[in-house]
Amino acid sequence: MKRKGILTVVSGFSGAGKGTVMKALMAEYKDTYALSVSATTRNPRPGEVDGVDYFFRTREEFEQMIADNALIEHACYVGNYYGTPKAYVDEQLEAGKDVILEIEIQGALDVKKRFPDTILIFVTPPDADELKNRLVNRGTEDMATINARLSRASQEAEFMNQYDYIVVNDTVPACVENIHSIIENEHDCASRNINFINKIREELKCFSKGE
Amino acid sequence: MKRKGILTVVSGFSGAGKGTVMKALMAEYKDTYALSVSATTRNPRPGEVDGVDYFFRTREEFEQMIADNALIEHACYVGNYYGTPKAYVDEQLEAGKDVILEIEIQGALDVKKRFPDTILIFVTPPDADELKNRLVNRGTEDMATINARLSRASQEAEFMNQYDYIVVNDTVPACVENIHSIIENEHDCASRNINFINKIREELKCFSKGE
Repeated sequence: MKRKGILTVVSGFSGAGKGTVMKALMAEYKDTYALSVSATTRNPRPGEVDGVDYFFRTREEFEQMIADNALIEHACYVGNYYGTPKAYVDEQLEAGKDVILEIEIQGALDVKKRFPDTILIFVTPPDADELKNRLVNRGTEDMATINARLSRASQEAEFMNQYDYIVVNDTVPACVENIHSIIENEHDCASRNINFINKIREELKCFSKGE
Repeated sequence: MKRKGILTVVSGFSGAGKGTVMKALMAEYKDTYALSVSATTRNPRPGEVDGVDYFFRTREEFEQMIADNALIEHACYVGNYYGTPKAYVDEQLEAGKDVILEIEIQGALDVKKRFPDTILIFVTPPDADELKNRLVNRGTEDMATINARLSRASQEAEFMNQYDYIVVNDTVPACVENIHSIIENEHDCASRNINFINKIREELKCFSKGE
C-alpha cells in the first residue's frame, strides 16, 4: 500500500543549526523528503533560480495567491511577502514524499491550525550557553546583532511547548537521524492508518462469516 | 538530565506474535525497559515464581488492592482476578525505566483514560490471512479454537483506531526496532519535556537581562 506523505514543519532559534541539519537530512534521504519551496516578492539574488530557491512572484501575483487561498501560510518581512504555495506541497504529499517546511514560529502554528496532522518539530541547542557560543563562533555578526538574536530566541521559546517534538541539535548526524526517525514513526500513528485498519477489519469480518 | 520513564501498553490479536516480540525487545534492550508484572488470584503453575511471573495474591488481598486504588487496571477472567500493581510501575518509571505493559484492549483503554500520557501500541500481522496462517501453523489448536480467535480478533479490531500506534509485525527484529524507536521518539515530545523548555526559557531570559 503506497503511503501518503506527511507534512513536517521545522523551526528553531537562529543559530540552532537548523539550516545545516535540513541540508544534511535532504542529502541523506533525498528519495524520502521534498523540501518545500517558498514564494516571495523579493528580487532574486545572483545565482538564485526560480522554482528551486524560491518561486519569484510579483506583488500582484502574490496577492492573487492569497486571495485564491493558494498559500498554506504567508507573512510579510521588511516589505516583502513570503509564503508556502499549497499546490507544490500537495503534489509532493500525493506522490508519497514527506514534505519539510522550514519556517518561523508564527507560520508553523498557522499551518498546524489549518492542517492538524502536520508535525511540528522545534530544533534547539542543548542549552542557551551553547546557542550563544554558536552565534559568537560564526564570527559573522557583532555583539549587538547576537544579543538581538538571543532576545528574539527568548521570545520564541515561549512557543516551544506548542510544538509536537523538541529535538536537541547536539551533533548534526544525530539530529538528522532523530528527525528522520520521528517522521518515520509518525507514519505508524493509528490516525494515519485508517485505511489499513478498515481493510483488516473487513478481512476479519469475512472470516467470521466463514467466507 | 535524567529522563523519566514512559508507560507503554502493547496489545494485539492473539497470534500476532506479541509475546515473541516483547521477549525480543526485553532481551535486546534490557537496561531500557521493565516489563510490568501482573498480580493475579490464580494459583501458580509449576515453575512460576512470585514477583517474576506474577504477584500471586489471595482474593482478599486482591480486593484490598482494588479498594486501595493500588491497581492501574484490573479485570476478571474465568473466575480469577488479574491486574497491574501501580507501585511497581511507578518505581520503575521514577528510576527512568520505560515500562511495558502487555494487556488486553479494555485494560489498555482504561489505562489511557487514567494516565493520558501512556503510549498505546497495537501489534498486528500485515493482514488477516497472515493472522490465520500463524494460528494454523502453531499447530496447537483445532479449527474451532482458531475460528474463535479470529472472531475475537474481529471484535478487537473495532478498537484499533483508539491506539496511538499500529505496528505491523512482519518480522520480529523489525517489529522490535519499530517499537523501540516509537518509544525513544516519544521522549522528544514537547509535552514530556516541559522541564527542559522551562530551563532554556530561564537561561534565555537571563541573557536578555544582560546577566
